[in-house]
Amino acid sequence: MINIIGITKEDKIEKNLSIQNVNFSNYKWFWVDFNQPTEEEITHLDKTFHFHPLAIEDCIHRLQRPKLDYYEDHTFFVTHIVREDERKLVKEELNFFVGENYIVTFHLLPALEVHHVWEKLSTQTKGGKWDPSYVFHQLLDNVVDNYFPVIYKIEDQLDNIEDNPGNESMNKLMDELFSIRHLLLQFGHTVNPMRDLLYRMLSSRHLKGITKRSAYFSDIYDHLLKLSDMVSSNRDVTADIRDNYLSLNAYQTNNVMKVLTIMTSIFAPLTFIAGIYGMNFEYMPELGWKYGYVFATGLMAIIGVSMFLWIKSKGWFR
Amino acid sequence: MINIIGITKEDKIEKNLSIQNVNFSNYKWFWVDFNQPTEEEITHLDKTFHFHPLAIEDCIHRLQRPKLDYYEDHTFFVTHIVREDERKLVKEELNFFVGENYIVTFHLLPALEVHHVWEKLSTQTKGGKWDPSYVFHQLLDNVVDNYFPVIYKIEDQLDNIEDNPGNESMNKLMDELFSIRHLLLQFGHTVNPMRDLLYRMLSSRHLKGITKRSAYFSDIYDHLLKLSDMVSSNRDVTADIRDNYLSLNAYQTNNVMKVLTIMTSIFAPLTFIAGIYGMNFEYMPELGWKYGYVFATGLMAIIGVSMFLWIKSKGWFR
Amino acid sequence: MINIIGITKEDKIEKNLSIQNVNFSNYKWFWVDFNQPTEEEITHLDKTFHFHPLAIEDCIHRLQRPKLDYYEDHTFFVTHIVREDERKLVKEELNFFVGENYIVTFHLLPALEVHHVWEKLSTQTKGGKWDPSYVFHQLLDNVVDNYFPVIYKIEDQLDNIEDNPGNESMNKLMDELFSIRHLLLQFGHTVNPMRDLLYRMLSSRHLKGITKRSAYFSDIYDHLLKLSDMVSSNRDVTADIRDNYLSLNAYQTNNVMKVLTIMTSIFAPLTFIAGIYGMNFEYMPELGWKYGYVFATGLMAIIGVSMFLWIKSKGWFR
Amino acid sequence: MINIIGITKEDKIEKNLSIQNVNFSNYKWFWVDFNQPTEEEITHLDKTFHFHPLAIEDCIHRLQRPKLDYYEDHTFFVTHIVREDERKLVKEELNFFVGENYIVTFHLLPALEVHHVWEKLSTQTKGGKWDPSYVFHQLLDNVVDNYFPVIYKIEDQLDNIEDNPGNESMNKLMDELFSIRHLLLQFGHTVNPMRDLLYRMLSSRHLKGITKRSAYFSDIYDHLLKLSDMVSSNRDVTADIRDNYLSLNAYQTNNVMKVLTIMTSIFAPLTFIAGIYGMNFEYMPELGWKYGYVFATGLMAIIGVSMFLWIKSKGWFR
Amino acid sequence: MINIIGITKEDKIEKNLSIQNVNFSNYKWFWVDFNQPTEEEITHLDKTFHFHPLAIEDCIHRLQRPKLDYYEDHTFFVTHIVREDERKLVKEELNFFVGENYIVTFHLLPALEVHHVWEKLSTQTKGGKWDPSYVFHQLLDNVVDNYFPVIYKIEDQLDNIEDNPGNESMNKLMDELFSIRHLLLQFGHTVNPMRDLLYRMLSSRHLKGITKRSAYFSDIYDHLLKLSDMVSSNRDVTADIRDNYLSLNAYQTNNVMKVLTIMTSIFAPLTFIAGIYGMNFEYMPELGWKYGYVFATGLMAIIGVSMFLWIKSKGWFR
Ligand SMILES: [Mg+2]
Ligand SMILES: [Mg+2]
Ligand SMILES: [Mg+2]
Ligand SMILES: [Mg+2]
Ligand SMILES: [Mg+2]
Ligand SMILES: [Mg+2]
Ligand SMILES: [Mg+2]
Ligand SMILES: [Mg+2]
Ligand SMILES: [Mg+2]
Ligand SMILES: [Mg+2]
Ligand SMILES: [Mg+2]
Ligand SMILES: [Mg+2]
Ligand SMILES: [Mg+2]
Ligand SMILES: [Mg+2]
Ligand SMILES: [Mg+2]
Ligand SMILES: [Mg+2]
Ligand SMILES: [Mg+2]
Ligand SMILES: [Mg+2]
Ligand SMILES: [Mg+2]
Ligand SMILES: [Mg+2]
Ligand SMILES: [Mg+2]
Ligand SMILES: [Mg+2]
Ligand SMILES: [Mg+2]
Ligand SMILES: [Mg+2]
Ligand SMILES: [Mg+2]
Ligand SMILES: [Mg+2]
Ligand SMILES: [Mg+2]
Ligand SMILES: [Mg+2]
Ligand SMILES: [Mg+2]
Ligand SMILES: [Mg+2]
Ligand SMILES: [Mg+2]
Repeated sequence: MINIIGITKEDKIEKNLSIQNVNFSNYKWFWVDFNQPTEEEITHLDKTFHFHPLAIEDCIHRLQRPKLDYYEDHTFFVTHIVREDERKLVKEELNFFVGENYIVTFHLLPALEVHHVWEKLSTQTKGGKWDPSYVFHQLLDNVVDNYFPVIYKIEDQLDNIEDNPGNESMNKLMDELFSIRHLLLQFGHTVNPMRDLLYRMLSSRHLKGITKRSAYFSDIYDHLLKLSDMVSSNRDVTADIRDNYLSLNAYQTNNVMKVLTIMTSIFAPLTFIAGIYGMNFEYMPELGWKYGYVFATGLMAIIGVSMFLWIKSKGWFR
Repeated sequence: MINIIGITKEDKIEKNLSIQNVNFSNYKWFWVDFNQPTEEEITHLDKTFHFHPLAIEDCIHRLQRPKLDYYEDHTFFVTHIVREDERKLVKEELNFFVGENYIVTFHLLPALEVHHVWEKLSTQTKGGKWDPSYVFHQLLDNVVDNYFPVIYKIEDQLDNIEDNPGNESMNKLMDELFSIRHLLLQFGHTVNPMRDLLYRMLSSRHLKGITKRSAYFSDIYDHLLKLSDMVSSNRDVTADIRDNYLSLNAYQTNNVMKVLTIMTSIFAPLTFIAGIYGMNFEYMPELGWKYGYVFATGLMAIIGVSMFLWIKSKGWFR
Repeated sequence: MINIIGITKEDKIEKNLSIQNVNFSNYKWFWVDFNQPTEEEITHLDKTFHFHPLAIEDCIHRLQRPKLDYYEDHTFFVTHIVREDERKLVKEELNFFVGENYIVTFHLLPALEVHHVWEKLSTQTKGGKWDPSYVFHQLLDNVVDNYFPVIYKIEDQLDNIEDNPGNESMNKLMDELFSIRHLLLQFGHTVNPMRDLLYRMLSSRHLKGITKRSAYFSDIYDHLLKLSDMVSSNRDVTADIRDNYLSLNAYQTNNVMKVLTIMTSIFAPLTFIAGIYGMNFEYMPELGWKYGYVFATGLMAIIGVSMFLWIKSKGWFR
Repeated sequence: MINIIGITKEDKIEKNLSIQNVNFSNYKWFWVDFNQPTEEEITHLDKTFHFHPLAIEDCIHRLQRPKLDYYEDHTFFVTHIVREDERKLVKEELNFFVGENYIVTFHLLPALEVHHVWEKLSTQTKGGKWDPSYVFHQLLDNVVDNYFPVIYKIEDQLDNIEDNPGNESMNKLMDELFSIRHLLLQFGHTVNPMRDLLYRMLSSRHLKGITKRSAYFSDIYDHLLKLSDMVSSNRDVTADIRDNYLSLNAYQTNNVMKVLTIMTSIFAPLTFIAGIYGMNFEYMPELGWKYGYVFATGLMAIIGVSMFLWIKSKGWFR
Repeated sequence: MINIIGITKEDKIEKNLSIQNVNFSNYKWFWVDFNQPTEEEITHLDKTFHFHPLAIEDCIHRLQRPKLDYYEDHTFFVTHIVREDERKLVKEELNFFVGENYIVTFHLLPALEVHHVWEKLSTQTKGGKWDPSYVFHQLLDNVVDNYFPVIYKIEDQLDNIEDNPGNESMNKLMDELFSIRHLLLQFGHTVNPMRDLLYRMLSSRHLKGITKRSAYFSDIYDHLLKLSDMVSSNRDVTADIRDNYLSLNAYQTNNVMKVLTIMTSIFAPLTFIAGIYGMNFEYMPELGWKYGYVFATGLMAIIGVSMFLWIKSKGWFR
């Protein structure tokens, strides 16, 4: 679907224009939204707007990093909309063509962020402060604000792993940690180029609309700096949690080993002595002694206690 | 509460002014402190001072990194007051609006650092060397000086873990180490942006008041460099402590294993031989021998000593 | 083999020219491809084209990083063609000499990427938009596009290791992981210098042909940035997978140890008691008791259950 | 103690001047050394020399990083004198105020480096090439030269740990390694800021005396670059040693485990069989067989050898 | 020994000149080689050539990083000649003084690289293209070319460790890996400063001779970039090999533990039952049963098979 809003030179807002019979030169500025466009509709990027073929190619293909390209009479931005869905990160591209008197948005999937701003502009009675760079700011602000729930959810999951209220096995926790690390890695590949994109926008001299509203775009840049810090800091925390579990595990293994060794060290000699007096030799003097049994159990008691004290002296019971 | 101090053109200090009926143009300069302001009081940021809406938004919302924004007629600073409380790091925001002839401080929570400087200025008889940038320096200096007790406390806790005077289990020490690492990570997210903030202040040409007192702000920058070093160095030390414990643990496990293996290696064959002569076969010639018992125990002694010597030759007793 | 295409001043394409009797000054521009040249043919680099001896040396020797050298009247590029072959990375050099009115390509091994573009140009009826920098862009684009299947294959192998559908032993998986890490390291040594090469090309003022088509070369640079991100991110993922397996292994060892210790802790004392009453002393009062057997088995039951409960209380069954 | 040397305008050296009655304007240049000054003597920094209060504060307080501050008519340097003492790093501050025609040194503890240069100057008959920047170079050179014995001693200790001539337990070696790592960390916090300090001195245009002798200060910078390399490289080596010990330990544990498992795997079934024929059932046909004993021991031999061969086939004896 | 070659103003080459009676002003340019000079010969650096005392000091002392110092009328270079000798890295210094019309080389040990170029120049009939910067290029090229065999040998050793054809114990392999890591660290401390040295040479405007031949020095820089990549990449590979061995070891330990636990888990209960019926109580009804023996062995079979199946169900046999 291609939606068009035009702001006339008298600052009136005209909606529901059709790409077929709109005359763009009648308007002060206009916003065209390619919302899940058909292949036929996509051809308007070239046919109607004459955008650069490389920018059009970037719209159609996947696997773009957030970026900004300057072309002769327009600037092209690739940004990412991000949602977390059952421990998978879903990234959708939202592309912008920003020119002197127009903004064109392009997204192959539905984008709530665009819908939201579109509604806001539609319900205005006149253009007022709105212009292409204001629309662009509103959209970017929405896109970036929606990154926060993703990282908050990750932080909640990390807290959950730390506290482990459900008493999950370490096995399961390590698996969750692994997927969270993967998620943070992928999220970083959106957040960091977005941060750099904003930085380039702010330090560029080409973008008049943005220079005019630089405080507003700086505010988005702030958010991205914070997000980038949170991603890297949470990666550090996951590494710490894993190391912590590993050292805990090593400590437990050590303790289990000590119990095993104590049991074996005490009972192996005792069982051996019992074995000796269980032998069936005809000539074994001790067997006939009156206090043979007392002697044997006494010997066992002495050995058992000695082993116990020796182990204790090694501090294994601490 | 909104507190106001005004310094008149005659350099006199006037206290207890009220936001409702003060006429700021009568004063050489003034300091307004928004101390835990009500929602109604917050509106004065816009209504009375006409600060930029983005700066006001940053005051109200949490989750700001320390930063500095230039607006047309004022500069806006976000800084962090930090306390350590039962191994949690408590961060509070202290915000500044610094203009030609005023400083406005804003904090949603009580701030001893502000109180301290306020009292100092209040007890002056005349303005003297005080001006907005001097107030700002005094406040920043107090804020940063209070970072040191936090890191000192962390270092004390680390020393405690290293020496382990209470003979805590490794388990517990690892948990403490983990929370200290987390704390250092969070502290670094205040100290490092604060350091960068001071750096930008010092290298900026926009801030006349700061250029004039640059030696004083450099001194704060020094402190932040030192703090940043301490944070990163203490993170390194925590990693070293953990690795040290882990290798100690591995070493102990190895030793426990050796004891277990020695006991088993010596007594398994001996017990087996005792078992053989404990069998009840009718025809077992050794059982009838006169020296059968001596033969069996001698065999055991030989085997036991051989195993002992073999193990010794492997150097496991070292 | 040395193949030559010349574009005449009338924009006609002439093919199958021979190095021996071609007169290059008759052409608007020309493309010479040294395709697996013989030693004799290589001499034409010097004899016919007078390229710089260091550039010629770089053509002949192996072990070049991708790079760009400016010489007086031509620019020399070393690039890598990469294929993955049974978990080995095969790198071939493709070298370019780009001058005002010519492009010379040089490759000691067959290069599909060159063949592909050669065919495309050969089938044109006239020169049109083609010129040396266009040929260069087409070739570079093909070379870099062919990096993607390599990284995709690596990502598929990583997914396979994560899911482990064939139930391979950890042993084998670790080996595969190791070779994938090696591969990524080597791939990074092509992708990263290629990325830097494109960056230098784009920011250089010397290369007129490239400045003219900078949007097109930027598009290749984009791809290389993405590739570089993918390489480093996949290295991170391999490290995560390995750490995950290691912690899983440690966890399993711990569990196996617990079973062992439980079995030993329960049966060692029991077997010892059985051993005691298996001794053959003549005077052992319990043996004659009516309920001796019941007493002994009861004692064993009590000890066995106690050990079981004690271990349970330690939480080892969780 | 405050020691003063003055060089008169006739290039004569005057010693044993007293701070109370010296007239500094009579001298071409002078050197004042605050050697372990009393509180009263410290006041001369302000009273007599009017140094900046922040610089004076830095002299008195501890915990300074090496640094350089420009004040209006003097430059202030903080440097560290370092000694290693029983595996502790002792750092003392040596501070410099360098002006047009004077150098003031300040140290709260005795400093051999200063004493050394003081004696050298005292024994001159005339000023000659000596001037404040020459004194400064001599002192810095001495300070930095004395860093080398510290790192050499660390390297010797590392070599000792690697070779382990005293056959220390891994336990003890890990402890030593830990303290060496700590030491290197602390040493790096002196060496790296000192290196940066020299770099700033060399690239600064403010310091005329240093520009004049830049080759000499470059030479000290060289030493600090080398020291910084050595610190970081030795940290890498300590990490390598630790990893090496850990893998050795894991390998040994594995070997010990194999011995244990071999002993248990061979004797557990044998002892069990002996146990069976040690049972006292009235009706056990084998017990009455003529070759029952031979049969039982033969069975044991077969099982024992089979287990041995099975284990051997697993390669555990390698 | 001090060897001298002079190129006369008529471009003739004169050899075997003596430092005592040569008149340098008669020559267009000259090369003086201090080859293992005596203490007396070293004094000519100052006496005859008046080089800067700091440069002379650097010649005599060890422990220099490769570097470049500009003095008034000459440039001083420190470079390293490197050989690998029985897994030790031997570094020798080769120093250069390069002036307008001379080059002086200085090495305390014999240097094949110098000998090689000396012979090449000696056998020329006239100076031709040779001049001090050409000699310098030839020498540097030889020095750097000889770094490659060192890294190739390291790579061969690494391949050997990976394939382990001699079936060495992990113990020994880890030791070799450790020494290779050390070697790479030390080699990096030559290669990386050499790379930076070439970079500074190429970007400097002071060195006319080098600017003139910049393509040639760029070619050496290329080699050093490649070497630096190889060093860091091989360090990464050694870390990977170690991690691989460690995880293999952990996996084997786990498997050994499983065998141990299986044997113990099956035989401990069986041996216990045999022990029970080996007790000598007078009143044990089962002993008199006709099928007591069958009952006991049946019970053992059931327990043994159950344990076996239980363990199998845990997947330990996989
Ligand atoms: Mg797209
Ligand atoms: Mg926002
Ligand atoms: Mg917003
Ligand atoms: Mg904001
Ligand atoms: Mg961080
Ligand atoms: Mg956090
Ligand atoms: Mg690690
Ligand atoms: Mg706030
Ligand atoms: Mg302070
Ligand atoms: Mg203070
Ligand atoms: Mg200070
Ligand atoms: Mg540090
Ligand atoms: Mg410390
Ligand atoms: Mg080549
Ligand atoms: Mg492409
Ligand atoms: Mg393409
Ligand atoms: Mg593209
Ligand atoms: Mg990454
Ligand atoms: Mg991935
Ligand atoms: Mg001090
Ligand atoms: Mg020195
Ligand atoms: Mg010296
Ligand atoms: Mg030197
Ligand atoms: Mg290093
Ligand atoms: Mg070293
Ligand atoms: Mg030397
Ligand atoms: Mg070479
Ligand atoms: Mg060469
Ligand atoms: Mg080359
Ligand atoms: Mg690398
Ligand atoms: Mg490699």
